[in-house]
Amino acid sequence: MSETAPQTNNGLHVACETREDARRRLLSIKGHVEGILRMLDDEMVYCVDILKQIRAVDGALAKVGDLVLRSHIKDHVVTAQERGDADAIVNELMEVLKYR
Amino acid sequence: MSETAPQTNNGLHVACETREDARRRLLSIKGHVEGILRMLDDEMVYCVDILKQIRAVDGALAKVGDLVLRSHIKDHVVTAQERGDADAIVNELMEVLKYR
Amino acid sequence: MSETAPQTNNGLHVACETREDARRRLLSIKGHVEGILRMLDDEMVYCVDILKQIRAVDGALAKVGDLVLRSHIKDHVVTAQERGDADAIVNELMEVLKYR
Amino acid sequence: MSETAPQTNNGLHVACETREDARRRLLSIKGHVEGILRMLDDEMVYCVDILKQIRAVDGALAKVGDLVLRSHIKDHVVTAQERGDADAIVNELMEVLKYR
Repeated sequence: MSETAPQTNNGLHVACETREDARRRLLSIKGHVEGILRMLDDEMVYCVDILKQIRAVDGALAKVGDLVLRSHIKDHVVTAQERGDADAIVNELMEVLKYR
Repeated sequence: MSETAPQTNNGLHVACETREDARRRLLSIKGHVEGILRMLDDEMVYCVDILKQIRAVDGALAKVGDLVLRSHIKDHVVTAQERGDADAIVNELMEVLKYR
Repeated sequence: MSETAPQTNNGLHVACETREDARRRLLSIKGHVEGILRMLDDEMVYCVDILKQIRAVDGALAKVGDLVLRSHIKDHVVTAQERGDADAIVNELMEVLKYR
Repeated sequence: MSETAPQTNNGLHVACETREDARRRLLSIKGHVEGILRMLDDEMVYCVDILKQIRAVDGALAKVGDLVLRSHIKDHVVTAQERGDADAIVNELMEVLKYR
């Protein structure tokens, strides 16, 4: 997994309660993925039932993404001018928003 | 997990090689989610690094979705008129495409 | 604008009522875009107000897209096996769904 | 069209060059929509050709959106803590990002 260069991450950590919330949601997503894997063991499974489950996981992932994004904006983006790394923060945020 | 009514699924199964491919990809997605969970154990983790990993999982999920969708269209949608369930197939497909 | 090769389009036209509905919606979208252009004449305009209008146009466009997509699936995709052009229809549909 | 309450918009305007760029792009989008309207006059038009043009307009709209979004983040979000309206700015930004 790629890592952000340490200089970008000087003290910008995920807030503790956000980490807890994200962890809980990702555990549930992992369980959901395992459920889809079990569905795929059944050779009678219907494509659209798989598709619906994939969409559900996708929605759950989007919620974790929004959670971490909001936390990042609230804790690090609105303070960027004060901290003096506004340009780097803006470029990085726009880059990550592209994939939405 | 919701299930499609049996009458909709009369003999419409996911093709064997698609099931295998989807299973392989979902196993890798599960591993990726576990990796993000480990990242979240680190209280120094940077929000944007989490966001990038979530986007990567999202992209991988979209690929499984496309795989199953293509298989469904190729095996069940193009034959719907012959089979006589075109209306149900169209409604169901449009419903599942909404969540993309 | 790119055009589909005639051989792909042998008799596969947009149904008349879909064309009428799409036209009506696109006229409204055009008016909405003109409204955003007028907003941009105001040098006091707020970014987020522009963004909200762009999202609204985006939603309206997605609805025209769904309308034409449903019409295409209903009229041309479910009959592809009978007509004998299933492979071409599936590839083309997956290609156009990518951009969603 | 909805308007942001004046108190939220105290001095937060779209930068001049962003307005110019957005205007140019929206004029081109308007022309593109007019092109699709002309395509719809042809009763032989193929659904997928319409869909491709709608996707192209959608991509062009997303680019204007990104332009205005980047400008908003760079000019107003990174300075929110200094200005003292961070909470309002974050909520508003998350709201507008939902529609992406």
